[in-house]
Amino acid sequence: MRRPVIGVIGPSEAPDAWLNTAEAVGAAVAREGWVLVTGGYGGVMEAASRGASRAGGLVLGLLMGMDPEEGNPFLEVALPTGIGHLRNGLVVNVSRALVAVGWSLGTLSEMSLALRVGRPIIGLHQPEWPFAINRAESVEEVMHWLRGVISPANRE
Amino acid sequence: MRRPVIGVIGPSEAPDAWLNTAEAVGAAVAREGWVLVTGGYGGVMEAASRGASRAGGLVLGLLMGMDPEEGNPFLEVALPTGIGHLRNGLVVNVSRALVAVGWSLGTLSEMSLALRVGRPIIGLHQPEWPFAINRAESVEEVMHWLRGVISPANRE
Amino acid sequence: MRRPVIGVIGPSEAPDAWLNTAEAVGAAVAREGWVLVTGGYGGVMEAASRGASRAGGLVLGLLMGMDPEEGNPFLEVALPTGIGHLRNGLVVNVSRALVAVGWSLGTLSEMSLALRVGRPIIGLHQPEWPFAINRAESVEEVMHWLRGVISPANRE
Amino acid sequence: MRRPVIGVIGPSEAPDAWLNTAEAVGAAVAREGWVLVTGGYGGVMEAASRGASRAGGLVLGLLMGMDPEEGNPFLEVALPTGIGHLRNGLVVNVSRALVAVGWSLGTLSEMSLALRVGRPIIGLHQPEWPFAINRAESVEEVMHWLRGVISPANRE
Repeated sequence: MRRPVIGVIGPSEAPDAWLNTAEAVGAAVAREGWVLVTGGYGGVMEAASRGASRAGGLVLGLLMGMDPEEGNPFLEVALPTGIGHLRNGLVVNVSRALVAVGWSLGTLSEMSLALRVGRPIIGLHQPEWPFAINRAESVEEVMHWLRGVISPANRE
Repeated sequence: MRRPVIGVIGPSEAPDAWLNTAEAVGAAVAREGWVLVTGGYGGVMEAASRGASRAGGLVLGLLMGMDPEEGNPFLEVALPTGIGHLRNGLVVNVSRALVAVGWSLGTLSEMSLALRVGRPIIGLHQPEWPFAINRAESVEEVMHWLRGVISPANRE
Repeated sequence: MRRPVIGVIGPSEAPDAWLNTAEAVGAAVAREGWVLVTGGYGGVMEAASRGASRAGGLVLGLLMGMDPEEGNPFLEVALPTGIGHLRNGLVVNVSRALVAVGWSLGTLSEMSLALRVGRPIIGLHQPEWPFAINRAESVEEVMHWLRGVISPANRE
Repeated sequence: MRRPVIGVIGPSEAPDAWLNTAEAVGAAVAREGWVLVTGGYGGVMEAASRGASRAGGLVLGLLMGMDPEEGNPFLEVALPTGIGHLRNGLVVNVSRALVAVGWSLGTLSEMSLALRVGRPIIGLHQPEWPFAINRAESVEEVMHWLRGVISPANRE
């Protein structure tokens, strides 16, 4: 009954290639029956939300402010946290696993925190980083990896 | 498309009368098509979650720790915040409106914060408080009040 | 070397009796060599800060916003948390013990959280509450109680 | 009267070169009359705290847990936040400016958040990053840069 929550993180302004990937990831997450969570605003967050929403999935957005009307139009559940940029850490904590589509400074704060606290994370459209991170070249690869991470046998 | 989020707050150990009310409130919230959020653990939180879940509603739980397997068995979406008791403030912030069923010290921290930040709140099974708070005697009264609060005409 | 941190909590607008008490508590905390922490703004928070500052003590303020220039003029160290009203929970967590001078809804959220998480707390100028809380009638009583709480023998 | 707060961030386990730099930065910050804040634990955090403490400075530590006895022995003021890894964001928010000495995943989460929210930051012992960041080769360079950032003329 409890559904896995997958975080999709990425910049609020992004090139088309990243947006297309994010939308496809969101749709695939939704088709799997998983819940999508993002930071709730534009760019990669909105594209993933649109993909998941159009695929009939449940879309949560963890907003920085206090206004439940904020955020992109594809959020079924808007969660205004009121804690500003510290909500980045919440996106990490509430996610069973995370997918980074591209990057920005905000995204990087989430990626590094996910690696720090041990939330499984995989990245698409990533530059070279001076740390190790799982990388995928396609949405199929992401989903294969996510199924392994989410599988009951892999839960500690 | 965006669904109102209603917080139901109350103690993790509670007398039957409070649990019965909480379950009925949860069920009524679900039947209205609204999303239920609670602190995710037992007592009033679990009773409201059970009511909403059995009525086919969406049930979120904002957990104190980092483990997504924690919390009562009726959570469809468990959100491990990792911020301990400060998640009480999150329950308040993410809710469009709140219903307090009975009280405990933790519940009181949420009630007073809701009144402080202006989240509409109504209480059932409440003692005398030295502050003003909306009170209801029945689930019907609660729902009537919630419909007024949630109605588009009343959104600021 | 590590100095005890004492939280003084109370409303940002308060009658003279509460302000006078808060100033005296702040001064007494400073004379003991303890660090004062408050929510950093006006009223009781400012009066306690003024008392501690004039007695040569160290005064910290945990601000809601991101601007280190905010807060009352007696803060030696302003700490802009950026987490809005959730900083009330921080005031509780960082304090070895708390003194409530009067009350407001915000103060009550701190008092109830302190009682919930087990931070020792004592109140002055309190109304009747439907829960048990230590009460003092004078600053001397407060200091006697604080010395007992802070004493190494009483640390768990 | 209000004293600038400088955050020094870096890994809890670090090579001697980083520890030596951190201790020198801490000492220089203290001699300037500024307040040092760190995450409160070992490695770079402890080295900076030791440097500042021995130079007679005020040393704050923002701890992850709830226990005020945690943290390195050079903290004059231990602030147990109880919010786990989200306290990384607090270290950023409360600092007027930050100095990164080396890096780890936790440090990177702070560096990226500082750049994201606009807290001035400078780095020592840094690898190549795919983003722009101020860099210094010596403690003198750091102090020169900090004096410019802290100067009243540069406050927005």
